[in-house]
Amino acid sequence: MAGATLTLDNPLFANFLFYAGVVLIKTCLMSILTARYRNKNKAYMTDEDCRALRQRTGADVKPTRNDPDVERVRGCHHNDLENVIPFVLIGLLYILTDPNPWYAKMHFRIFTVARLFHSVAYLKPLPQPSRALGWLLGYIVTLSMGVSVVMSGVM
Amino acid sequence: MAGATLTLDNPLFANFLFYAGVVLIKTCLMSILTARYRNKNKAYMTDEDCRALRQRTGADVKPTRNDPDVERVRGCHHNDLENVIPFVLIGLLYILTDPNPWYAKMHFRIFTVARLFHSVAYLKPLPQPSRALGWLLGYIVTLSMGVSVVMSGVM
Amino acid sequence: MAGATLTLDNPLFANFLFYAGVVLIKTCLMSILTARYRNKNKAYMTDEDCRALRQRTGADVKPTRNDPDVERVRGCHHNDLENVIPFVLIGLLYILTDPNPWYAKMHFRIFTVARLFHSVAYLKPLPQPSRALGWLLGYIVTLSMGVSVVMSGVM
Repeated sequence: MAGATLTLDNPLFANFLFYAGVVLIKTCLMSILTARYRNKNKAYMTDEDCRALRQRTGADVKPTRNDPDVERVRGCHHNDLENVIPFVLIGLLYILTDPNPWYAKMHFRIFTVARLFHSVAYLKPLPQPSRALGWLLGYIVTLSMGVSVVMSGVM
Repeated sequence: MAGATLTLDNPLFANFLFYAGVVLIKTCLMSILTARYRNKNKAYMTDEDCRALRQRTGADVKPTRNDPDVERVRGCHHNDLENVIPFVLIGLLYILTDPNPWYAKMHFRIFTVARLFHSVAYLKPLPQPSRALGWLLGYIVTLSMGVSVVMSGVM
Repeated sequence: MAGATLTLDNPLFANFLFYAGVVLIKTCLMSILTARYRNKNKAYMTDEDCRALRQRTGADVKPTRNDPDVERVRGCHHNDLENVIPFVLIGLLYILTDPNPWYAKMHFRIFTVARLFHSVAYLKPLPQPSRALGWLLGYIVTLSMGVSVVMSGVM
């Protein structure tokens, strides 16, 4: 079990730090993009946001949940929450099962590239099945690690 | 503190690996079920998905967010995200507070059974209060561990 | 690397336990508030919930997703999931990069205070930019830790 620790001395953990950090920050950045489209399209969700806009600019808008730009970014953000968070949690447990390091690193790299591609495909949007393939690749990575975790566990 | 480590040598952690892996994989599987209902009911969320369907089959559909089957699965998935992710995070911290192992294992087991039952109750659906009870049981487990975590912590 | 471990012997981890526990419990408590408003406003999401109400009280209601009170609490809960979960994950990785303890503790404290204020501002609601500032402060903390994590990692 020598290698299976969560310390910077473990090269696999140092590797995970980078990729987990990237996909988590990427997920968080979607909030900024949502805020930008809300401001640009004046598509706010609450009364107090509409009131603040009115006081600032005099524009009179009602709360909405149907702006296509905002909903597209939110859909992308929500898909990240559904996929990136389980990846990070399962990945953290997976490192502790002492997997083959090369094989484990490929999991982290493929997931990260797949999710970055998924976001581009979702936001641009690229024609399907681009988004679906980006999602599927990341999903398979997470399930593959998840099966290792469950099989290393004790009922 | 000898037992309170995240390694396979710690029987409690090995136990957690199994249950956390099961509930995380269970959560991820909801994506597959959502996709199946979207295809079956032709209930897509984006323009590019509708376009891909049209090119494949000639069927002309508009994006929708109101398909009852899809929304039910999404509701179940969302409830998992709200409950399973905090359970795994709090559970991981809880192990490190060196709890009584038998007591801790019962937490993990009860949560897992309760959430599997919750999903069946949500998707079938079983008459209430089935779903509510499944949810409540898992919720109490998470809060119980959460209180231990906060009380072991230092402000 | 002596200090960078996830054990109660590490004062920084003991500190994190407290703050991560508080914000996770706070997030989970939103479910209770949602349930309370659903019952108070008879605003249920599923047919079986409406049926249970009918059997209990004779009241005949249809499923709805447009109750303003319920949607406000759900918006607050969703915002917590988007922000608190990444904070806890990134925070856990951040501890393992052996940061300056005082600096790290300030991150945890500021985040927790900012998120508690965000919830008050969202639920009351306070006039903007109260909620926006609460969100922004927590967001900056998470990104700051995230950058440290990525820079400590190895591509």
